Amino acid sequence: MKNIVISGTNSVSEEIAKSLANSLSAELCKPIYKVFPDGESYVRLPCNVNDSKVIVVQSLINPQDKSIIEAILLGDAIKEKAVDQILVTPYLAYSRQDKIFLEGEPISIRAILKMFSEYYNFLATIEIHKEDSLKFFNKNSINIRPYTYMAEKINFDNKNIAVLSPDIGAIERAKILSSYLNCEYDYFIKTRDRITGEVTMQPKQLDVKGKDIIIVDDIISTGGTILKATQILKNQGARNIYVIVSHALLLENAEEKLFSSGVNKIYATNTLPKKNKVDYIDVGPLIAKNLSAYLN
Amino acid sequence: MKNIVISGTNSVSEEIAKSLANSLSAELCKPIYKVFPDGESYVRLPCNVNDSKVIVVQSLINPQDKSIIEAILLGDAIKEKAVDQILVTPYLAYSRQDKIFLEGEPISIRAILKMFSEYYNFLATIEIHKEDSLKFFNKNSINIRPYTYMAEKINFDNKNIAVLSPDIGAIERAKILSSYLNCEYDYFIKTRDRITGEVTMQPKQLDVKGKDIIIVDDIISTGGTILKATQILKNQGARNIYVIVSHALLLENAEEKLFSSGVNKIYATNTLPKKNKVDYIDVGPLIAKNLSAYLN
Repeated sequence: MKNIVISGTNSVSEEIAKSLANSLSAELCKPIYKVFPDGESYVRLPCNVNDSKVIVVQSLINPQDKSIIEAILLGDAIKEKAVDQILVTPYLAYSRQDKIFLEGEPISIRAILKMFSEYYNFLATIEIHKEDSLKFFNKNSINIRPYTYMAEKINFDNKNIAVLSPDIGAIERAKILSSYLNCEYDYFIKTRDRITGEVTMQPKQLDVKGKDIIIVDDIISTGGTILKATQILKNQGARNIYVIVSHALLLENAEEKLFSSGVNKIYATNTLPKKNKVDYIDVGPLIAKNLSAYLN
Repeated sequence: MKNIVISGTNSVSEEIAKSLANSLSAELCKPIYKVFPDGESYVRLPCNVNDSKVIVVQSLINPQDKSIIEAILLGDAIKEKAVDQILVTPYLAYSRQDKIFLEGEPISIRAILKMFSEYYNFLATIEIHKEDSLKFFNKNSINIRPYTYMAEKINFDNKNIAVLSPDIGAIERAKILSSYLNCEYDYFIKTRDRITGEVTMQPKQLDVKGKDIIIVDDIISTGGTILKATQILKNQGARNIYVIVSHALLLENAEEKLFSSGVNKIYATNTLPKKNKVDYIDVGPLIAKNLSAYLN
């Protein structure tokens, strides 16, 4: 049976789809896409998807709601024709609204994944904010953690290196990466001054003096936490600071602020639009590797 | 049991929700709504919807995809609490992509209505492009035709009046309105010149000379057809030209072009953002009347 990779409706998705199709030796199909004068989206597939396994690659980048609806429209276009419908969302928007934080809120990621499960039998995503959220997708799914793959591509040869997670909740990422790099890992603890209310953070136990430090995280938005972490690490005598992140939103010129504060390199996957000076690692081959079990 | 009307996330929806709540003597609840710096939408209900019948009013205006996702997020926020979830979409976007016109297209309105039926038990909309499309909503629904209600509010007292539909497919609207006004009705036939390819249109049988003509339609986008119709009616000696339309998109200053070509008045419902010089008729009371049977 034929595998067809359909690239989504933005340039991020096109790049990953092309690379994924190449890694899978699959046919690549680019949909016709336009926006009507009134603002409605239009998609059409110029390829024959009958009797094929179809993999739609759509990174849910800003405007997120348009990216989501277009993934649904592509799903509708293939549903009755393809033998299997697979959705790859390199970046899965709304994954941070994964519970009711305040009474009256929706669980946004539940709503999004529920819609997708009406159209797709399998979902693959790169590092969702909380893996547990994938339960809202009613079919099989995989969360792909890119950190060791990224480290492999970066090829760190530093001897005196350690991995830090910004908080205990994300410690698993630091653990995985340190295991691959065969080095120490730790996490930051945050303390709030009872009088001034000021939040300070420092590594739980790790002595960072003279070490190269990798800060690992799933997503950087405005980069506030990593900025603070970098300042503390520099004060404590850390040598080089590297940031490894799946999704680099880097809002409000966050990358400039991070580099100015002492970050040497930011490594991110190509799931989001690119910023200058950030080093990107293509996740196409990684997704291919993770999909191959499902496709065969 | 209490009825609660929740206004959607745009000013069009707020206006209709307020009027609907007033007509139903129901509680009105305005969600907290914001857009995060990265572009994701956030909604929260500041009201208690437990044990209530909840009516979400969301007109699917531009940006349509954001309006749709927000209706879904509101649906997720009420689903497990409310006794009944009702969605009112005064303007239902994507209803013109109601079939596969070209191989490889989705049926967009099917996809949208399918999503809504996961969250809502009942759907009310003002004049969907094709009523048959409501079959894609898996629960009960009503299509509300506003034309006689509009004519009632406008209070035409013209003696020598006739109603015209731009084409035979929409003749039902002209029929309904002419029946209420107790006047003649007809539709335009289009002919294409075999040599030049030019399309001309004229009323099938009706002699328009000296008459006031009402052109009735579900939606005006750029207004091209109505512009052409007006020119022909004026050439054939029609007196005043009135346009009655449910949804007045009026893209690219269409209203200016129509008024310049001889249209005297454009009457529209308030399902879309307002334009200068167009006369709007509030559909809140009309929706209330049509919902009351379902609510009691």
